[in-house]
Amino acid sequence: MNTFGETLRLTTFGESHGPAIGGVLDGMPPGVSIDYPLLRTMMAERRPGSSRYTSQRREEDLPELLSGISEDGLTLGTPIGFIIRNRDARSSDYGRLRDVYRPNHADYTYQAKYGLRDHRGGGRASARETAVRVAAAALVRPLLDARGITVAAKLTAIGEETDPQRFEQILGDVTSRGDSIGGVVECYIKGMPTGLGEPLFGKLQARLGGAMMSIPGVKGFEYGDGFAAALRLGSEQIDRFTTDADGRIVTVSNHSGGIQGGISNGMEINMRIAFKPTPTISLPVETVDSSGRPVTITVEGRHDPCIAVRGVAVVKAMVILTIADALLTSSK
Amino acid sequence: MNTFGETLRLTTFGESHGPAIGGVLDGMPPGVSIDYPLLRTMMAERRPGSSRYTSQRREEDLPELLSGISEDGLTLGTPIGFIIRNRDARSSDYGRLRDVYRPNHADYTYQAKYGLRDHRGGGRASARETAVRVAAAALVRPLLDARGITVAAKLTAIGEETDPQRFEQILGDVTSRGDSIGGVVECYIKGMPTGLGEPLFGKLQARLGGAMMSIPGVKGFEYGDGFAAALRLGSEQIDRFTTDADGRIVTVSNHSGGIQGGISNGMEINMRIAFKPTPTISLPVETVDSSGRPVTITVEGRHDPCIAVRGVAVVKAMVILTIADALLTSSK
Amino acid sequence: MNTFGETLRLTTFGESHGPAIGGVLDGMPPGVSIDYPLLRTMMAERRPGSSRYTSQRREEDLPELLSGISEDGLTLGTPIGFIIRNRDARSSDYGRLRDVYRPNHADYTYQAKYGLRDHRGGGRASARETAVRVAAAALVRPLLDARGITVAAKLTAIGEETDPQRFEQILGDVTSRGDSIGGVVECYIKGMPTGLGEPLFGKLQARLGGAMMSIPGVKGFEYGDGFAAALRLGSEQIDRFTTDADGRIVTVSNHSGGIQGGISNGMEINMRIAFKPTPTISLPVETVDSSGRPVTITVEGRHDPCIAVRGVAVVKAMVILTIADALLTSSK
Amino acid sequence: MNTFGETLRLTTFGESHGPAIGGVLDGMPPGVSIDYPLLRTMMAERRPGSSRYTSQRREEDLPELLSGISEDGLTLGTPIGFIIRNRDARSSDYGRLRDVYRPNHADYTYQAKYGLRDHRGGGRASARETAVRVAAAALVRPLLDARGITVAAKLTAIGEETDPQRFEQILGDVTSRGDSIGGVVECYIKGMPTGLGEPLFGKLQARLGGAMMSIPGVKGFEYGDGFAAALRLGSEQIDRFTTDADGRIVTVSNHSGGIQGGISNGMEINMRIAFKPTPTISLPVETVDSSGRPVTITVEGRHDPCIAVRGVAVVKAMVILTIADALLTSSK
Repeated sequence: MNTFGETLRLTTFGESHGPAIGGVLDGMPPGVSIDYPLLRTMMAERRPGSSRYTSQRREEDLPELLSGISEDGLTLGTPIGFIIRNRDARSSDYGRLRDVYRPNHADYTYQAKYGLRDHRGGGRASARETAVRVAAAALVRPLLDARGITVAAKLTAIGEETDPQRFEQILGDVTSRGDSIGGVVECYIKGMPTGLGEPLFGKLQARLGGAMMSIPGVKGFEYGDGFAAALRLGSEQIDRFTTDADGRIVTVSNHSGGIQGGISNGMEINMRIAFKPTPTISLPVETVDSSGRPVTITVEGRHDPCIAVRGVAVVKAMVILTIADALLTSSK
Repeated sequence: MNTFGETLRLTTFGESHGPAIGGVLDGMPPGVSIDYPLLRTMMAERRPGSSRYTSQRREEDLPELLSGISEDGLTLGTPIGFIIRNRDARSSDYGRLRDVYRPNHADYTYQAKYGLRDHRGGGRASARETAVRVAAAALVRPLLDARGITVAAKLTAIGEETDPQRFEQILGDVTSRGDSIGGVVECYIKGMPTGLGEPLFGKLQARLGGAMMSIPGVKGFEYGDGFAAALRLGSEQIDRFTTDADGRIVTVSNHSGGIQGGISNGMEINMRIAFKPTPTISLPVETVDSSGRPVTITVEGRHDPCIAVRGVAVVKAMVILTIADALLTSSK
Repeated sequence: MNTFGETLRLTTFGESHGPAIGGVLDGMPPGVSIDYPLLRTMMAERRPGSSRYTSQRREEDLPELLSGISEDGLTLGTPIGFIIRNRDARSSDYGRLRDVYRPNHADYTYQAKYGLRDHRGGGRASARETAVRVAAAALVRPLLDARGITVAAKLTAIGEETDPQRFEQILGDVTSRGDSIGGVVECYIKGMPTGLGEPLFGKLQARLGGAMMSIPGVKGFEYGDGFAAALRLGSEQIDRFTTDADGRIVTVSNHSGGIQGGISNGMEINMRIAFKPTPTISLPVETVDSSGRPVTITVEGRHDPCIAVRGVAVVKAMVILTIADALLTSSK
Repeated sequence: MNTFGETLRLTTFGESHGPAIGGVLDGMPPGVSIDYPLLRTMMAERRPGSSRYTSQRREEDLPELLSGISEDGLTLGTPIGFIIRNRDARSSDYGRLRDVYRPNHADYTYQAKYGLRDHRGGGRASARETAVRVAAAALVRPLLDARGITVAAKLTAIGEETDPQRFEQILGDVTSRGDSIGGVVECYIKGMPTGLGEPLFGKLQARLGGAMMSIPGVKGFEYGDGFAAALRLGSEQIDRFTTDADGRIVTVSNHSGGIQGGISNGMEINMRIAFKPTPTISLPVETVDSSGRPVTITVEGRHDPCIAVRGVAVVKAMVILTIADALLTSSK
């Protein structure tokens, strides 16, 4: 249940305020070079504090690679274990939340499921766990690079605003009011080979959709024409086949979003992911404690005003892991 | 890859024009009564020909149950194998499509993936495979009934129309023009226990999202406030906790859609699923054959003008399977 | 739990006295020819009644293939569903055993696990389920043939007798006394490529051992020098490497049984499997009924005097499935 | 492939001479107390140097627990990640073995499978990986304790010697000659509940057999009457049912070894596991290098004369993991 993937499997562990978070990446082919600068870059993109408007917790967040790699920096084909120490965790911030259920957080549901929970900073439900996903994706990306597959993602909306020029200002406004705001991330996969994906439950869009919905704060997923497809006529959405200059079969349009029958057709895959506003806000909020008694809480801990900002790096990471898994599964 | 679920697993097989489609449902607890009238009802809801505007292929579509059931109609705890014969398959309809790639269908991608394909009616990519999902869900639903969990789904939009009063007329118009149209299905789960779902990759919304995206023709999935959540402020989306008349902890609003941190909080779970228009239309369409040569095809086979109509039964089936699996996984 | 394999997965279903037994073989590569004569031959080898001393139940036992195969008899890459009808099941034979726990059978343990059971002929615990394994192996064997891998098995002991010339006589004696007897099956895999298997829990011997121990009646498994290895000195068991006439690295001896570190080294793999005597005998046996009351039963149903006789075909089938799975997993 | 178990899953990683080995234990129920003294005891039982005749490498071998545990030492229900640092690894010992294939080791097969390998001390194939299994088993054992299930194992033979009084002397003799020797470990499970295990491929003996065969150096596995069962008549092996003083159904004898039809019957489960001699010996051995050229090597590194000695702890660990997994799977 803490494992993602079929052929390339990432198993993760770790609470935000325990000794460490980490993962085991199993199924990497042997002989792949670890790209350490890429690892540093991808981790930096996700890191709190990398923008003025992401959480100011300072984390090195660089994984320590413990196995599966030769002295020369090549994968051995054996599992790559790695950990990221939790260094800057001021758990005293959370002491007074021990018995309180913060709205829109996992406090209540974890308590209901497990009967106990790590109340410090969300424990396993903290967005910090996504650092493990990004680290794994950085180890995996050379597999896609080698095949000319590129994954790009960007923030296309913050609230109702879609002009990137104005994003910083909106984030500043929201922060100064102690509030938070939602956003939309778009992601594109270029250079896809044809034939990736499985016909039934392993449809490429099912794997991608499941992967995106597993990211904390995601409320919706669409690909190709998405929800707009529901508004259209069949005659308006025909992706007519033709041949390109090299004689390869391609489609003239791409309403299908690069996937037909669950399997890639070689066109660009595109998708949009909706993030809710950060659940933690600085304004006082009413809730109950574990006995059901009403309390008003004001959370002063660090938080991003818009989780979609850091969501870009996480979306990209999960897409990389999903596509690499499909690639290794299909090359069986 | 043709298996859905972790603890309750459905493995399916079958091409639309082969001898039969079928499935194996493994993990059913022993002692559950098979509800034969429910099986008949749920199959009828999905069946082509059950509405004036669904495909006119007449299918009995009633599964033959082959194992896992006692003489008294109780599950034995062993796998339930079942098949549905393909009786009314006029494969001669498809002969002339043998070497043609129909746009927006899986013809091209299956050929790319497998190097050969069953060209008759889409083979494994046919919507007919969803009959197996519905049959399995009908066997499973007594598990949810016994816990007071109900799953309901309905068609809430056909194209831009959201008034159900007008759906029949629009379907008639679209059919008479030889076209097809998209639609949106909404689904609700009531009576959810708290604590179902897993924290990371098995988040309830990830399982539901993956399940919905595995349905043929689905382009988008959202739950709770969905894409609208991306437009909002955090202060507008607070699901404040309180206690109900029985002292149970509940939320005052339900922006979260019944799931927090991937785990059910006991409130109603709601979701929306976008279906594209039926890819097969009666109008002539341009495409290419397997050599890349341009051809114009006119498909005269049976098809629904709006797959979302039958999608209602399939959405409901996949939600039943997903929730039952989460239930059995959580009761470990 | 009713599924075997990682990349090539066989899911089985069926009670011995229900409508049918069957399976779904998922993960077969596309384009493989179904070898129908081989299917008939392998099924015949396992069939009751194929020898004078195997159970006299007449079964056609030929599977009906329902999906995953093209009109030309080639695998499509999609799951192959198949069923074998239960035709000759005289369940009235079993009526009086409804509330009795036969010694050395699964009656008591199934009742303990499930709270109910199909008492007719053992239900799911009947050796009849092995027909599904053999059918699947017959579909799979062309994958091994194409790579020059051959699997052979033979009966090497019945009780203490190891001279095949005398097997028929011993079986006759045992049968005439209403008794049964154990036996040993040996299995060899020739033409193994190097590099199959996984280092840890998926060691080739772990997969083979698990597969063999899943066969009804098997009490022990060993490979290479097996239990005899425990008696020896390290200096007596060295499989010295050298090169053969073609310059390939081989071992001079084969104490390792073709596997080192869980991975095939290209030498012959050999193993021995111990079968207990058929648990059903014709002599009166004392036992208890479901209330714990002592009863004496005399079972008159059909049974083999030595399950190891038919075990040869089942051992071979499970080895074929295991090696094909390892092959497809390793070629990822 | 580096994951063991269905409901309780252990994923392991690590080479013997890399930075660390470790594991992720997923599926532990919440609220279980970590038994730190037990952890220390079980690790000590397996540790090299714990006996005069086990390898003299000094390892602390105590795992650092990184997640899944509350401040009070209770499991949270989330995955428990842990690592064991490799501190005392003198990899210079192995420099000259870089291009040599040691007989009966995994050097050649790893090279064949992966195309590269960590030549230092066997890398992933080193017996050191079993420390992770033992650590996980120590975390898991309180689950069995709470149900009154006990697992015991002992060394019953070294070579042909079965008198424990003489084991030390034989180990001394073998060591002084630079040789090694095989051995047999017996394992017993007492207090088993009835009804654990699955009917087909997940038979309890299949899980146990697969687990045992995954231990480095194991060549054979048997349970109940084992290979001796093959020598017997059915009438000699009847485990007659009766009732005990408390009216519970039990068997008078236990030829079945506590399992019938793959499912526990509540009697003691017993099994025997054959270990080959340690493949590394101090005597000079002839072999080839990676170019196939003959070389003679003398390995001076530390090694046990009899891996079965430490095998006792590993057998016990794998049985604990297997039974706990069956227990959690069955309580679904």
